[in-house]
Amino acid sequence: MNASEPEPSGAPDAGLLAEGERAVWAALGRVVEPGDERVGELIDERGPEEALARLTRALPAGVEVPDGAREIARGALIGARLICRGEVGWPTQLDDLGPARPVALWARGSASLRVLAVRSVAVVGARACTGYGQRLAADLSASLTERGWTVFSGAAYGIDAAAHRGALVVGGPTVGILGCGVDQVYPRANEQLLRRIAEHGLLLSELPLGAHPNRPRFLQRNRVIAALTRGTVVVEAARRSGSLNTARWAADLCRQVMAMPGPATSSLSAGTHELIRRGAVLVADAGEVVEQVGEIGTDLVATAEGRERLRDALAPETLRVLESLPASARGGSVESLVQRSLLGPDVVLRRLYELLSLGLVERLGAHWRLNPACKGTS
Amino acid sequence: MNASEPEPSGAPDAGLLAEGERAVWAALGRVVEPGDERVGELIDERGPEEALARLTRALPAGVEVPDGAREIARGALIGARLICRGEVGWPTQLDDLGPARPVALWARGSASLRVLAVRSVAVVGARACTGYGQRLAADLSASLTERGWTVFSGAAYGIDAAAHRGALVVGGPTVGILGCGVDQVYPRANEQLLRRIAEHGLLLSELPLGAHPNRPRFLQRNRVIAALTRGTVVVEAARRSGSLNTARWAADLCRQVMAMPGPATSSLSAGTHELIRRGAVLVADAGEVVEQVGEIGTDLVATAEGRERLRDALAPETLRVLESLPASARGGSVESLVQRSLLGPDVVLRRLYELLSLGLVERLGAHWRLNPACKGTS
Repeated sequence: MNASEPEPSGAPDAGLLAEGERAVWAALGRVVEPGDERVGELIDERGPEEALARLTRALPAGVEVPDGAREIARGALIGARLICRGEVGWPTQLDDLGPARPVALWARGSASLRVLAVRSVAVVGARACTGYGQRLAADLSASLTERGWTVFSGAAYGIDAAAHRGALVVGGPTVGILGCGVDQVYPRANEQLLRRIAEHGLLLSELPLGAHPNRPRFLQRNRVIAALTRGTVVVEAARRSGSLNTARWAADLCRQVMAMPGPATSSLSAGTHELIRRGAVLVADAGEVVEQVGEIGTDLVATAEGRERLRDALAPETLRVLESLPASARGGSVESLVQRSLLGPDVVLRRLYELLSLGLVERLGAHWRLNPACKGTS
Repeated sequence: MNASEPEPSGAPDAGLLAEGERAVWAALGRVVEPGDERVGELIDERGPEEALARLTRALPAGVEVPDGAREIARGALIGARLICRGEVGWPTQLDDLGPARPVALWARGSASLRVLAVRSVAVVGARACTGYGQRLAADLSASLTERGWTVFSGAAYGIDAAAHRGALVVGGPTVGILGCGVDQVYPRANEQLLRRIAEHGLLLSELPLGAHPNRPRFLQRNRVIAALTRGTVVVEAARRSGSLNTARWAADLCRQVMAMPGPATSSLSAGTHELIRRGAVLVADAGEVVEQVGEIGTDLVATAEGRERLRDALAPETLRVLESLPASARGGSVESLVQRSLLGPDVVLRRLYELLSLGLVERLGAHWRLNPACKGTS
């Protein structure tokens, strides 16, 4: 990624911490290695400021004390923002990780993580996948997206890339969680894909800007994928595939663990078959995935209180799109919403998918309309 | 099948009932529709003779009273023999069906059902299967046979036929359980296959000679397949495939229910995937099947008492082959056993597979030897 990209239009979530507090979290992100529970406990017991002070005192001589404010400013220059614990934008699902939760998340892209995480599924699998697996991942992902579910994945080669592409093909958002800084381009060949994910959804990382990927970081990254989503689907995996590690995290976190079958003769399905034997739910299509992870958004819109909670979580842009929707049962086309909202077509579509994932709107072919179940919200 | 086939060399199992009693069971087989529990209870309470008397009294005027002795004589002419309850050859596994168990079984082929059933697996599936399913069934079956397990199936088109063929290809026995009389050729195109099954293993049916197949009979036939075997593997099946009925019987009888996965996109694997979702064990190869059904034969040969029980179950021919095996660790070739036993090579091979399924012998490439764990038996 480079600085020539448009900057995000500002933090989409209101309710940021004070600048000084944000700088502390940014600095902590620089000194804490992902998943370090002891440091996590220290932060929980002493608070971030004292934890940071202790950690920096313990730094070996000659190691630079991190400057959180400078980190945040540097991020802003390249379109990366920090989401801190305690802020409105913080996805509280991560708190299920206890002291192992990330100290903060770097994000590229203007979509709201909290909104996208409400109805989200991780779609992961082998880097060295088959054509069958690739098609399966792309189709599953496209179909989940059309049903208003957001696909989260690891932006790696193979199944991950196919999953992100499937979501993008139908115009939906998708979230890539990286094992390196959000400013890094890894793997190199996914440069275009990474840019498109940031444009239409989000790139996320708990690692500081500039951080390089390595195996332990990939494994810790997997816990974030599992924690942010309601369930993990492994599409294709050999017996020792790293994607099985994401499934293990999902199981530990009491998320749904799902796996797709493949030919009994395919070594690249041996891992998913093993998962199924150990209790993962066999899923063959998006309908079966949705059956497992449940209709959270729809459940929320069913009550007035739920609808209010949803509205509170909406970014101003999203609210504008919601309010541009006509009250008619026929709804409106993207073009008509562009005219009413004075937002660009890309932005309108992205926000519509957010609203879809929340169950606030429905798609009827090229038209979008308010979900009849929650007309009271607009 | 026709009368030009060689007659079986006589009942391979000693311990037949008296002729009159056998005639009663044969006659019952003619008047009882498979799986009729009320009649089964009547037989259990009153004994076969009184049950037959009552049933024939209840026959509509003009319906011929069956002549069991004539049935048995007619069977002998075409190489079919009757296995009655209470005889040494009766597979006691069927008693798990309670009053729904068959009254008697007709068999074509000289192999011992009791021996073959000790380590047996049902391999079943769709008639209209894919090439993938066909290869899978044949490979699984060949591999199970080589490990000393006998494959039972329904001798239908598709997966069933592939399963039988896989066993025959590696020279093993296999058991076909029919939904019609054992003298019927159904389906017509399987004529060659049916003949080879009878030559190298067994064709079985609880239906009387001349009985035609129909849907209820196929469904009842499935309970016999499930009951005779230690577990059922469904290789490929659409959502409403009849083979799922065999799996249901297996589950009801506390047998292992296993299913093979296939592409998530294949409607012909939708049935096996559904089975797996409902608790069937996903198996990808013969090793995984054996893991589920356990090493019964090997367990038996581990004790002196078990070895005696096994020897008692052996047909004289089988015993002759067992006694022809040299005591050396190298064992002997089929040719050398033909010379020692004065039996034909086909017979020797068939009996060796019986002994293999009992765990009494081992195969070392082209050589066969006594299982070192049970040298005391010969």
